[in-house]
Formats: sequence, C-alpha cells, structure tokens
Amino acid sequence: MASFHCLTFLTDYGLEDGFVAACHGVCFQIAPDVRVIDITHLVPPGDVRRGAAVLAQAVPYFPPAVHVAVVDPGVGTARRAVGIAAGDSVFVGPDNGVLSWAVEAAGGAARAVSLTNRALWLDSVTATFHGRDIFMPVAARLAAGTPLADAGDEVDAASLVRLPRPESRVFDGGAEGEVVTVDRFGNVQLSVTGADAARAGIVPGARVALAWQGRDRAVPETVPYGTAFGEVAAGELIGYTDSAGFVSVAVNGGSAAGRLGLRPGTRVTLTVSK
Amino acid sequence: MASFHCLTFLTDYGLEDGFVAACHGVCFQIAPDVRVIDITHLVPPGDVRRGAAVLAQAVPYFPPAVHVAVVDPGVGTARRAVGIAAGDSVFVGPDNGVLSWAVEAAGGAARAVSLTNRALWLDSVTATFHGRDIFMPVAARLAAGTPLADAGDEVDAASLVRLPRPESRVFDGGAEGEVVTVDRFGNVQLSVTGADAARAGIVPGARVALAWQGRDRAVPETVPYGTAFGEVAAGELIGYTDSAGFVSVAVNGGSAAGRLGLRPGTRVTLTVSK
Amino acid sequence: MASFHCLTFLTDYGLEDGFVAACHGVCFQIAPDVRVIDITHLVPPGDVRRGAAVLAQAVPYFPPAVHVAVVDPGVGTARRAVGIAAGDSVFVGPDNGVLSWAVEAAGGAARAVSLTNRALWLDSVTATFHGRDIFMPVAARLAAGTPLADAGDEVDAASLVRLPRPESRVFDGGAEGEVVTVDRFGNVQLSVTGADAARAGIVPGARVALAWQGRDRAVPETVPYGTAFGEVAAGELIGYTDSAGFVSVAVNGGSAAGRLGLRPGTRVTLTVSK
Repeated sequence: MASFHCLTFLTDYGLEDGFVAACHGVCFQIAPDVRVIDITHLVPPGDVRRGAAVLAQAVPYFPPAVHVAVVDPGVGTARRAVGIAAGDSVFVGPDNGVLSWAVEAAGGAARAVSLTNRALWLDSVTATFHGRDIFMPVAARLAAGTPLADAGDEVDAASLVRLPRPESRVFDGGAEGEVVTVDRFGNVQLSVTGADAARAGIVPGARVALAWQGRDRAVPETVPYGTAFGEVAAGELIGYTDSAGFVSVAVNGGSAAGRLGLRPGTRVTLTVSK
Repeated sequence: MASFHCLTFLTDYGLEDGFVAACHGVCFQIAPDVRVIDITHLVPPGDVRRGAAVLAQAVPYFPPAVHVAVVDPGVGTARRAVGIAAGDSVFVGPDNGVLSWAVEAAGGAARAVSLTNRALWLDSVTATFHGRDIFMPVAARLAAGTPLADAGDEVDAASLVRLPRPESRVFDGGAEGEVVTVDRFGNVQLSVTGADAARAGIVPGARVALAWQGRDRAVPETVPYGTAFGEVAAGELIGYTDSAGFVSVAVNGGSAAGRLGLRPGTRVTLTVSK
Repeated sequence: MASFHCLTFLTDYGLEDGFVAACHGVCFQIAPDVRVIDITHLVPPGDVRRGAAVLAQAVPYFPPAVHVAVVDPGVGTARRAVGIAAGDSVFVGPDNGVLSWAVEAAGGAARAVSLTNRALWLDSVTATFHGRDIFMPVAARLAAGTPLADAGDEVDAASLVRLPRPESRVFDGGAEGEVVTVDRFGNVQLSVTGADAARAGIVPGARVALAWQGRDRAVPETVPYGTAFGEVAAGELIGYTDSAGFVSVAVNGGSAAGRLGLRPGTRVTLTVSK
C-alpha cells in the first residue's frame, strides 16, 4: 500500500485538555511529512452516532487519507480496534460503528484488520487512552507506508460493527425520517435525502407540513421548501436540501432546533401541503 | 500573480460540525503545499461585523496570503462572491462587508473580481455551503498560482460593500466611541484609537470617567488609565490602549464586559477626570 | 543549538478572537518550515496551574520542540519572560510557573535566559500581548536555529518560579492527595500516582473509599478500582490509574466531577476498603 499525504482526526476528546495535542505529537514523531487535519473533537462524549455522521459527511471532501475516529466509550474493554481499507482510504478506530457510515460512503470495506500488532503501538499502552497509544501510532505508520496487513490479523469485513442507518421512507405525498444531526446554527438535518423527497413532490416551491413526536399532529408546522436561507424573512422557517444532500429545516438567522424542539432521533413526517 | 504560501480561514461555522474540515480537505486537494491557518470559526452565527473586526486585527500579522472569510447569512442569494487584491494579499468571501475592514487595513482594494468562473468551483455546488463549494476552492487555486483575473469578471472596487466604521470623536477633555469587540477575557475594546485618546489627555497616569447608554451619567465609572492589567489590584478596572491600538477597559483577573454590562455597539463617553 | 521541526503552543487566549491566529502568523513569517501544534488555548483565563498541568502531561508525547506556553496574568508587569533549555527541548513563556512542571518532567532546567534581546521581538511591542509580540517571535527564531543564549541574559535556573507540586502521601492502607485536573469527560485526576497507590494496596480489584472536604467522612463514597470505564455499568463510579499515570475517578458514560462535586484543589483521602 502506498503512503498517504493526509491524515484526518475526529474524537470526542474536546479542546480544553491536552489529549488531542498528545495524539498530534505522536503522529508528528512517526510521520512528520503527513498533513493532519482535525475534523472535530467536539463530538459529545461517547456519542458514537454523532461521530459517525460528522465523519461520513466530511470524508468525501478529502483526498485518499488515513481517517482516524475515536469515540470510544468501550476503550479498554473487549471491543476490537480496527483498520479498514475502503475506496482509496484507510479508516482507523474502535470497532463500535463510528467508522461504519464513512466506510460505507467510501464504497464499503474492502479489507479489515484487527489492530493486534503491538509493534505498531506505543511502547507503553494505557487502558483509557487508545487514541494516543494505539490508534494514532498505528494510523501514522499506515500513513507513512506500513501496509495495512502488517497492523494485525485480517478479519471478515462482514463482522465489523455497523450502526443502523437512520430510517427513512417516501410515501405518496410525503416522506418520513428522523433527525440525524443538528449543526451549530440549529439547522436540523433529517435522514431523508433530497432526491427521495423530490419523488414525493418535496421540491423548491412546495409547502411542506412537518409533524413529529411530541407535537400535536393536528397542528403541523408548515414551511416553504426552498434552496437558501435568505429566501425567507429573518426569523422564518424554511425547508431545503442541505449541503450533504439531506432534507433539512432552518430558521433564517436563527435556530430551527431551538424553535421546534427537535433533537437527534426524533421521527419527523413531511407532507406536501395542498 | 505569484502563488502564496499561506491561506487564512475565518468563519462562523463553529467547531462541532465537520464544515471547517471539509473546507480544509478541499484546500488540501487543490493546494497541498499551502499552509492553512485558522483565524477563528467561532464568530457568532451571521455576525458580519464581528467577523470583520477579528479579521482586520489579525491580518497585519500574516505574510502575503489568501485570506478567506465566510460569515455569510445571505449564502445562496444574490449577494456577490468576490476576490479582492489589496496590498500583497488577496481576500476571498461574500461581498457583504466581512472583508472590508481588513481590505482597508491592507491599503484598500486595488482590484476586485466577482467569482463567476465556475471552472474554479467544485463540480457540484450547493446553495448553502459556498465556503466549501466556491470560496475555498477558488481561494486554494489563487494560492496555488491562478491569477485573480481568471476567477471571474472584474468589478469596480468602489462597488464593494463596506461596513460603516464604528464612529469615534475626540473633544476637549475626552473622547467618544462605541464598543467594537469584547474578547474572551471580557476586555472591552472601543472604537477610539489610543493615539486619538492621547490628544484628549487620555494617557497612562490619567483617570478617566466612563459614561454610556443605560447608565446614569451623573454616576460615571472612573478608572485609572494605564498600560498593563497588573497595575491595578485583582478585581479592579483599568483603561489602557490594547494590542490593536484601541482604547479598552479591563478588569484585572476578571471581565469588564460582565462588570459593566457593555456590549458591542454601546456608545461610551470617556472624560478625563479632574 | 540545532533548529527544531516542531513548536507547540498553549495559552488561555480562547478560540473566539484572533489572538492565537496572530501568533501563528508571526511564527509562520519567521519559521515557515516549523510545524506548529496547538496544545490547548482553552486554559481558563489566568489559571497558571491548569496550564502547567496540561502542558506537563502533553509534552512527553512530542519530539524535541520549542514549547510556548502563555498563561500570563502579569503580562506587562515586572515578571520575567524566559527561555529554558530542558532535555532536548526549549520552553518559552512568562516566568510565573506555567512552564515549571513541564520543565521538571523534561529533566529540569539545564539553562535559562531572560528574554531581554529586543532584536528577537517584534518591532512594536504592546504591554498586553506578549504572546504575539515577544514569546512567539522569540520562540520561532529559536525553532529556526537562533541559539538560546542569543535570546537574552542567562539567569540562574534556581531562580525560576516553580509552582508547588500538588501534595500527596501514602499511608498504611491508603493514600491522600488533591484534585489536579478535571477533564472534558468529568474524570477527576488526583495527585497520587498509580505507582504510589499500588504500594498502599490500591490496585485493580480493590475497593476504595473516597472521602474529601465538604463531605461527611462517616459516609465515604466507595468505588471499585479497575482499569477501564467499561468495567462498571453505565452511570457507575470507578477508580483507575489514568493515561498520565495518576489515580483518577470516573463515571462510566458520565461526569465524576459533576456527581461528586470535586474541583481542582480539593483534598481527597483514599482508603482500601475491607
């Protein structure tokens, strides 16, 4: 396997401690010529689904790279540490699903290994910081040209943990899905793709009624479907297909999540308004 | 135009999503040898003035660079996307004023183009993420050596949107201005330069009475004017000329903004105390 | 002194202003080939002990480097600015103790200079931003090959300000220490090393009673001592030796600091449970 020029890094370590920096230091010592790009370190602690979603949506904008993602509530337990070849890239992290959506987006796992070769780890390994002691040193060596096969025992790609995909379905005159992520702006991303929504008539120019758990379905919130926030007045709701290709709801200049009380996991029904 | 070794990046995208990282990935693919330095991504959502202020105060410490700033509440609407040559640098972003103070600090716009050449954009452009799809790929290509003129149609520099400068004036025995920014420490920066203030007698050693909207002007807050926080006791207020050259108010070891209730935009009058 | 390939940067500047970026710009102008790695910029404002603790725990994972740490409530006052050679690295910052634990971890100060050579500073130096105007330009020049001796007058290493080490002691059947840091996850790190604790019988498999100021010592919190969070059920407390080698307390999937109300500085007694 050729070496990589780029390594990305996503965790739930936060930015107030030195955890991320220690990993950067480890990487720099092993692979000083590799560019390290942080995806985010503000995944809520232990939120594997959130980490998976952010990773999967960022990865398509990178060149072939080693992608390291560590949201790892099971660190130090029996969960496997894995390296997965998918597309032109390699994914490194705990085998708890955090890599699964990105691997799928990259074309699926071509090969996978359990990171059992201790020669690629730091000399001293702690039970609670595998990002620094195992994942990053292995990833840095892979970036520097070590073949994936050298990182450990090959495992059946079908055995890798996969997060269930958020459900979505299209019906006559509408679609149903769940909230996948809420971004910094309070924009609410649903699991329905814009392409699927279009088949149901949810297209720019339509009006769409939203109903969800915890809200009286007799009084849906109805929003125009458009393309850009500025198409509605400040403070108004708008539906649109977001930059990752999913149906989303925003408030121009405000937070749709705050306004509507929508959180990841909430099921939402969209109906084209007559 | 020669190529640049450095590209800076300022947005209101936050750090909890993968938005900034996707832009970094785009840049790395186009211009792998360019150093990318983040200025901040924590501009409050849509706060164009705050973005403009932070950019203008950071830019003087960079070498010739491509500076990308995306605080863009009008993304996807008719607002222009522009590239502006000023001094030895190029500024890229929406034409909503976010670049204007930095451009001015760099000597003013020598030339400007509307970023209409789609050949420099990503192949697929969304309506809500021009940072990733337009601004960063164009900026990366400019950094890698593409001439600014190739990025689109030249526009009259006089037509560029400029944010009004915060007002300030000096009078006999004092000065008046407005709060421009409040930093992490709660230090309050006013629009009055230290040089102007000095003409009114506001110099280290003076005592200065502060009065502002929402405060009874009969009971001003009087503070010593000095040079460093440690010149007053912990918890005490001090006025000083800050590291960007503006009159500021701090609390040694505390937050002046919190103590005084001052926010960006508040007008403040400073009077030399007898 | 040879040049360095790596420069690390720790401050309390926060990420919402352009302060960190201005320092990066200064460094890039002076030493464009040096990799700059941020340790953290979220040290609570003026919290020298916290800065010292984070720095000391990150530094061992870096190659020889110039380490710049600026938590500097006394900026602009008589406190010295120093450069310290320790191990294979150089430490640059205010002489207020923020460097002291890292210097000690690196083997102690071999030589120290007061950064009095203005030729290495920026041309214009403000009283409140020595990170940008003094520490970073000096550090960048040291990284680029300027000998430490050229940075100013040599000072007696014994005269450097050292923070007192957090106290800890082992007694028959237990140990006592203080809370050093609380990390993003709410994990509470004590000043007792795992090695010392082991001498008192605090080892995986033991049960440990915790007592501390502000808690009725007659009703201690008793926790199992283990190695990884996942060894206890979600929401349960566990004691363990953390990734820096210190006794710590965590809640699996939660915040021990929040649960127990423990803060840096609190003295905690650990007793092996019968």
